[in-house]
Amino acid sequence: MANIKLKDISTRAPKDWDKEQTKATTEGILEKLNELQNLLFAESKHSVLVILQGMDASGKDGLIRKVFGTLNPQGVRVQSFKVPTELELSHDFLWRIHAVAPPKGIIQIFNRSHYEDVLVTRVHKWIDDKTAKKRIRAINDFEQLLQEHNSTVILKFYLHISPEEQEQRLQERIHNPTKQWKYNEKDFEEAKLWDDYQAVYEDCFEQCNDVPWTIVPADQNWYKEYVIANTLLKALEKLNMQYPGIKK
Amino acid sequence: MANIKLKDISTRAPKDWDKEQTKATTEGILEKLNELQNLLFAESKHSVLVILQGMDASGKDGLIRKVFGTLNPQGVRVQSFKVPTELELSHDFLWRIHAVAPPKGIIQIFNRSHYEDVLVTRVHKWIDDKTAKKRIRAINDFEQLLQEHNSTVILKFYLHISPEEQEQRLQERIHNPTKQWKYNEKDFEEAKLWDDYQAVYEDCFEQCNDVPWTIVPADQNWYKEYVIANTLLKALEKLNMQYPGIKK
Repeated sequence: MANIKLKDISTRAPKDWDKEQTKATTEGILEKLNELQNLLFAESKHSVLVILQGMDASGKDGLIRKVFGTLNPQGVRVQSFKVPTELELSHDFLWRIHAVAPPKGIIQIFNRSHYEDVLVTRVHKWIDDKTAKKRIRAINDFEQLLQEHNSTVILKFYLHISPEEQEQRLQERIHNPTKQWKYNEKDFEEAKLWDDYQAVYEDCFEQCNDVPWTIVPADQNWYKEYVIANTLLKALEKLNMQYPGIKK
Repeated sequence: MANIKLKDISTRAPKDWDKEQTKATTEGILEKLNELQNLLFAESKHSVLVILQGMDASGKDGLIRKVFGTLNPQGVRVQSFKVPTELELSHDFLWRIHAVAPPKGIIQIFNRSHYEDVLVTRVHKWIDDKTAKKRIRAINDFEQLLQEHNSTVILKFYLHISPEEQEQRLQERIHNPTKQWKYNEKDFEEAKLWDDYQAVYEDCFEQCNDVPWTIVPADQNWYKEYVIANTLLKALEKLNMQYPGIKK
């Protein structure tokens, strides 16, 4: 995925893609996911880690609600990563991440992730390129550890929105009373750093691609939901899981 | 609730209770719960702790799937408590429980709980009555702590099934290939201790009633789901929550 340029990738569904049909397809996928999740839990051979990254207002919360909101909560966990606490900062940057890696049978969703440690930190120059390079290597090693030593299926998604779509959604947070609690004036400051963010994301996709990224056109929720649900479905189907018989 | 006798309480819906109508009512309640959960998360003033207890095969897993499976997974967490690990046993019995108490904005479900420490342990006489009494006091103090110091709404449910219903469900685990993974031959041994279990439960309801228990007739899933969804709804409505405005 060398020399990826985000601005050359559409943030919308392919032209003439049928919205209503896609929504119906997604509903069917969600039903299948429900059954496969039950199987994942029963078999408890694999774990699943879904990493969600994207600019502010790229729709991570809504995605979690829609795609994972009909699964059995006993088998799904969501972790949001915010600014690290003092305790977390007194450890290596993967310490807090590793602590919530999924056990077998569980689907763990990361709303933001260890990637912030090579994204926001680089945009604001809190770390230099040498440190970034070392972190990137540590991230690749860490993901390999999970895959090889806990049969973790890792799915990494970048919710790709346009700056115009972001602006509109941030504005809505000011004007919609049920969304005002999400408003943070700093988001508008961060939005000005759009190009810097896109550049560090592009580098990250290139350097951390042992486990490949899926760039999800995310201006339209219905398309974003379809792409992620479908990617998850394909990944789970590939596991060829079986209900275990009676324990001997 | 002094001198409660479980065998005098029906394990079924009241006579002539309409099944289809109740199922429709439950669907309506689940929709309202979805909105209230969003509000709970947005406001982040209160937390909710749902404690589920019951004999083996009383339907805790299915209940979690049905009643909490349509909520936003970002705001719901489920913790199952199994036999304590060595690390957990090297701490007081509430240590592992306190670690997963719900933060504000979150609905935390306990699939079994600290009550096992005065239930299974008493049935098997792993602890004496004096220790049980001290634990019961500690439990009451602990629940008060959560209520007073983190605005935690605590809802405690006992899923009340008949021994005949239990027998049938345990048998099904042997014969249904998608349920065999749940089969544990020890469950049949435990089932023989039915009366002992009922006695320690009755004592527990009497001694730990500062936060009251709801005894849920649970032989029929549709009725059990309705009672618990409705109890949760009433508890959330009482909080009179509001969407917060823009943070100053």
